[in-house]
Amino acid sequence: MTSALAWDGRGLRLLDQTLLPGAETWIGLEGAADTAAAIARLAVRGAPNIGIAAAYGLAMAIARAPGDDELRDAAAVLREARPTAVNLAWAVDRVLTAALAVAPQQRAAVARAEAEAIHAGEDAASLAIALAGADLLAGSRRILTHCNTGALACGGTGSALAVAIELAARADGVTVLACETRPLLQGARLTIWELRRAGIRHELLVDGAAAGLMRRGEVDAVIVGCDRVAANGDTANKVGTYAHALAARAAGIPFIVAGPTSTIDPAIATGDEIVIEERAADEVRHAGGALLTPADTPCRNPAFDVTPAALVTALVTERGIASPPTTESVTALLAPPW
Amino acid sequence: MTSALAWDGRGLRLLDQTLLPGAETWIGLEGAADTAAAIARLAVRGAPNIGIAAAYGLAMAIARAPGDDELRDAAAVLREARPTAVNLAWAVDRVLTAALAVAPQQRAAVARAEAEAIHAGEDAASLAIALAGADLLAGSRRILTHCNTGALACGGTGSALAVAIELAARADGVTVLACETRPLLQGARLTIWELRRAGIRHELLVDGAAAGLMRRGEVDAVIVGCDRVAANGDTANKVGTYAHALAARAAGIPFIVAGPTSTIDPAIATGDEIVIEERAADEVRHAGGALLTPADTPCRNPAFDVTPAALVTALVTERGIASPPTTESVTALLAPPW
Repeated sequence: MTSALAWDGRGLRLLDQTLLPGAETWIGLEGAADTAAAIARLAVRGAPNIGIAAAYGLAMAIARAPGDDELRDAAAVLREARPTAVNLAWAVDRVLTAALAVAPQQRAAVARAEAEAIHAGEDAASLAIALAGADLLAGSRRILTHCNTGALACGGTGSALAVAIELAARADGVTVLACETRPLLQGARLTIWELRRAGIRHELLVDGAAAGLMRRGEVDAVIVGCDRVAANGDTANKVGTYAHALAARAAGIPFIVAGPTSTIDPAIATGDEIVIEERAADEVRHAGGALLTPADTPCRNPAFDVTPAALVTALVTERGIASPPTTESVTALLAPPW
Repeated sequence: MTSALAWDGRGLRLLDQTLLPGAETWIGLEGAADTAAAIARLAVRGAPNIGIAAAYGLAMAIARAPGDDELRDAAAVLREARPTAVNLAWAVDRVLTAALAVAPQQRAAVARAEAEAIHAGEDAASLAIALAGADLLAGSRRILTHCNTGALACGGTGSALAVAIELAARADGVTVLACETRPLLQGARLTIWELRRAGIRHELLVDGAAAGLMRRGEVDAVIVGCDRVAANGDTANKVGTYAHALAARAAGIPFIVAGPTSTIDPAIATGDEIVIEERAADEVRHAGGALLTPADTPCRNPAFDVTPAALVTALVTERGIASPPTTESVTALLAPPW
């Protein structure tokens, strides 16, 4: 387990994920603007870690300027860093609400404590998800995943990848099939990096190869993370996920979504309401730093897609499993007591 | 239209597609071994063009050494260059059979004539496919395709891409959505290059983005080529195709396969019998020349996948359309008169 976030009580340091696996470079952050910029350029990524980083970013901003206006401005800057992961707004709102509930001179301590609680909560969620997911997938050996959902993306050892790591700890012969995840190659760069460090057997494949391997019976289960889950279980996740869900259904194998309940957005009834971030065309035009196509080639670059709940076998959270996810089963995960 | 093959009656020159779009470099070939090597390393690619190149390769070999043994050896070398595209064996067998039917001193002329007939036949097939496919997709404006199926891959202006080009010639507002096609990026490198030269509006996307765009109603039809079509219509094509077929079905839009009848293998009942080429792991580890992941990362790299006929709306060939493709409708395409 290699956390990508280090908090010393005053400042946040991040492992710059844009530079992995070539270089392990840590960067220091001091407030809302630089934290928002780090989120926007994917130096920190993964829905839970975006939330944790934003919480610390707001706490740092409040420590410098605890007035109402500054606090709300800092929260707005962070909330707008990326649109799709609901964890971002969720974490910012938790810190903001806690801070606004007390007098300005108390806000720094309260905001810091709330951010630390968010971080600790995500660590605990990761552990619970890993255990519940591994129970659910007991007996599966060839686990296909997409993007990066390990310690670089989440608290603890991650969400979907944490399940695979737990499975590998429990049984011999587990292989993780990691999709490279174009355009930014979080699978090839980050998931492989984590799996090597964890000593878990793995194979890398291009995203388009996943469906064919499932059809040929070479995959036992698919497990992915999530960036926003609607109340009905429709799930936004890294672009490419939906095709894997279709292929898993066609192959008759489980398609599991794993993530903390902070990723569930009960305010959104279905996935049709989820805003899908469209990122820069240069991400598509380049790979591994090289320009693949003329520099002015028009591109489409949605960063996420939506998998309808009907294709999801189970949603695994730290508060239980919705299997299958429906408005009723997903809402039940959010019911008190928290 | 930019043919990737130039035959002067004695020697074959190829536009080296591994170097596009950065450089337009032509290479000269003289016989079976160098032609087989060019096919294996994808200097020439696309099922129909592999067949044409192999036919010329065998004709060149026969011109040098027309004896039975040399002829059979040369045919074997060419036939084994790549396993999946049936056009390769089909073209080699046509030239071989024609040559063996005559005396050694006549073989050079006969083999050359047969190879030229194969080339001319593929050019004619491309035109017929373009016209029939454009009729079939009349009214579609947003056409998604995968890999490269233009003049660089086929005779004439191509197969699937020829249909899109014909559609664009007939109607305003046609946009080709080109999937980049990892690992070797034939979409980003070759299809974009052809579309720019043809002046056709286009957008590039990563392979994983296709399914989500279909689900959002942003694609009118999918059209792809084929590397081997079984008698029942199951279709092997570039890896990533099957996921597009699943997504098209889920979105309720047509999924069209276009290719010459030389790509149909009536000896194979279903797609389960098609040998899928597994290529080198370094293709997955690299993109655009850059190493993405540790150099010893284990990889899976199937070059193709199989789309079951049940997901194919229509198979468009130069001899008619099988819609839907079934053993009966596909076999009918191959019935005499040829």
